[in-house]
Amino acid sequence: MNRIQRVQKELERANADYLITGTTSNMYYLIGFSEEQMERPLLLFITRDDYFLLVPKLYEEQLKQFPLIVYRDGEDPYSKLNLKENSNVLIDDTTFSLFTIEILNRFKPGRIGRASRILGKLRQVKDDEELEKMEKGVKKAEQLILEFVSNIKENMTECQIERKLKSFLIEEAGNISFDPIVTSGPNSSMPHLRCSDKKVKRGEAIVIDYGIKHDGYSTDTTRVFSLGKPNDPLILEIVEIVKTANEEAEKHVREGMRAKEIDYFAREVITNKGYGDYFIHRTGHGIGIDVHEDPYISPDNDDVIEQNMVFTIEPGIYLPGKFGIRIEDEVVVKKGYGKTLNMLQKELYII
Amino acid sequence: MNRIQRVQKELERANADYLITGTTSNMYYLIGFSEEQMERPLLLFITRDDYFLLVPKLYEEQLKQFPLIVYRDGEDPYSKLNLKENSNVLIDDTTFSLFTIEILNRFKPGRIGRASRILGKLRQVKDDEELEKMEKGVKKAEQLILEFVSNIKENMTECQIERKLKSFLIEEAGNISFDPIVTSGPNSSMPHLRCSDKKVKRGEAIVIDYGIKHDGYSTDTTRVFSLGKPNDPLILEIVEIVKTANEEAEKHVREGMRAKEIDYFAREVITNKGYGDYFIHRTGHGIGIDVHEDPYISPDNDDVIEQNMVFTIEPGIYLPGKFGIRIEDEVVVKKGYGKTLNMLQKELYII
Repeated sequence: MNRIQRVQKELERANADYLITGTTSNMYYLIGFSEEQMERPLLLFITRDDYFLLVPKLYEEQLKQFPLIVYRDGEDPYSKLNLKENSNVLIDDTTFSLFTIEILNRFKPGRIGRASRILGKLRQVKDDEELEKMEKGVKKAEQLILEFVSNIKENMTECQIERKLKSFLIEEAGNISFDPIVTSGPNSSMPHLRCSDKKVKRGEAIVIDYGIKHDGYSTDTTRVFSLGKPNDPLILEIVEIVKTANEEAEKHVREGMRAKEIDYFAREVITNKGYGDYFIHRTGHGIGIDVHEDPYISPDNDDVIEQNMVFTIEPGIYLPGKFGIRIEDEVVVKKGYGKTLNMLQKELYII
Repeated sequence: MNRIQRVQKELERANADYLITGTTSNMYYLIGFSEEQMERPLLLFITRDDYFLLVPKLYEEQLKQFPLIVYRDGEDPYSKLNLKENSNVLIDDTTFSLFTIEILNRFKPGRIGRASRILGKLRQVKDDEELEKMEKGVKKAEQLILEFVSNIKENMTECQIERKLKSFLIEEAGNISFDPIVTSGPNSSMPHLRCSDKKVKRGEAIVIDYGIKHDGYSTDTTRVFSLGKPNDPLILEIVEIVKTANEEAEKHVREGMRAKEIDYFAREVITNKGYGDYFIHRTGHGIGIDVHEDPYISPDNDDVIEQNMVFTIEPGIYLPGKFGIRIEDEVVVKKGYGKTLNMLQKELYII
């Protein structure tokens, strides 16, 4: 059964009429076509027994192997559609809202829900081909970061490092899975801060969170670096706690447990050391075509862990005004237990 | 009046209660904050007399200068909101649908519409600071492509060239506005084809459509190249027609005319030469923070052209199985007339 057919079966089970997606990772997953989302509708519609694409004229030639409804610039794309009113529609999570709003106002669905109910569940369990791509991706990403870090010198700004890393990853790997995060010293206490013009100094914690796209699949890894020995003994202490939390979670991964239990193993280590309030995010997230996808490894997620799921384990401790430490790996669930895909050391790297 | 206040005035005029945006270009325009969209809601809500952000805990420190509603991973973010039911809601066009669907199902708005009605109109007229950034961006992008093209050698694949160009632009300019399009020979007849493993050959048309982000603003330019003299005299003929169409449209840009009239000037040249059916897209699009924004220069757009709008003029002719040619500039509307920001020659570049 191909992926479209699996969706059709799930549509029937969910008693839904349409699943609609723009040019997101779900379209790539379903038909292998990838494009940035733009203001022109380029949408895939799946019904219980059919599917078609609504496409601008300028994509007609390149998509001719699919059933198409084509419109020209200046025509009203939605007038070409013949959707039932009052239907039960599922829309892809990351499709732009403008399409959802047009569909809502034009076709007055009776119910509208998130397609991730179906697609998130299908995508979170990887097949062998996907797993092979992902393992290779992590290996490649690790080689690249080791090659890269010798370029980091004192007094470069975070953004200079970020830019160099980004262009290096694209040149070597073809693409990145997200803009790398490079923060240093007090800035590293903000887990998702963009880089700044702050210069990196000897002995500071430098957190690098980065990923590549390899054969369509994302990687996501975080390690901590320092130019020379850390200037604050607390850095090594915190690295040790976070490393233990990371290892505790990874070694307890089992098929059949709940996602929140994995979160618990990491969180318990940090809480017991008195830093629970400074671990301000969940322990991890699924990864695949998207860098964040099901299953989310968070304190409230009751989802059951299955074989061939892949997710990150990335506990962190963030001390405002001082520094933050996060150590992030990818784990795949094999028969029964978890296997960490990363080989990089978890200790602070002194460069 | 700041940008939030201008939105509030427009909300009142539109009789709308909320304008909601995710971490898109509109959030950057409104409060200067930029982040990739993710699955966690990080949303800006503007009411007629107030505004606030709904943010995950891990962004609290970096956004503390704004009024915040903070949630932790594992908490239900939407339960922290207190939106009126049956209200009139405008949602940002490119915000992920998952947020729109949650808002729809949780707060049952009476009406839901596209925020671009308000924000597209505000953003399409640039202020002096924005124009200065955009002019500088085009200048920089042009220098970079001239520097780059000497790297193109026979038998490199399109994707090798694309990857090199992308990493070069990121290293030199900090960021790109979209993945560059590099197509050659018959592939160039598909205006938005991603690169392939096809090798570039001497004498073929090579179309490069690329842009950088400079100080938060996008550029977008297309030129045609050939390694040595073109091997088909039709290439030069078509370049000449497209160049004339491009120039006719650019020289007729006037404050007060309608967008569709500009489209007409380009289209007429191509139609008169018998290639009307092969000009398969609109003539251009507004540009600013986003690479595509209002005003769209398309056959059906009655919008009136105003001073300080910036848009592309990019007619093209696409001959399936043979080649395609597109020449794209950015034009700013000055007092009365249009000024082309690009200085690159419009003729085929022989490299």
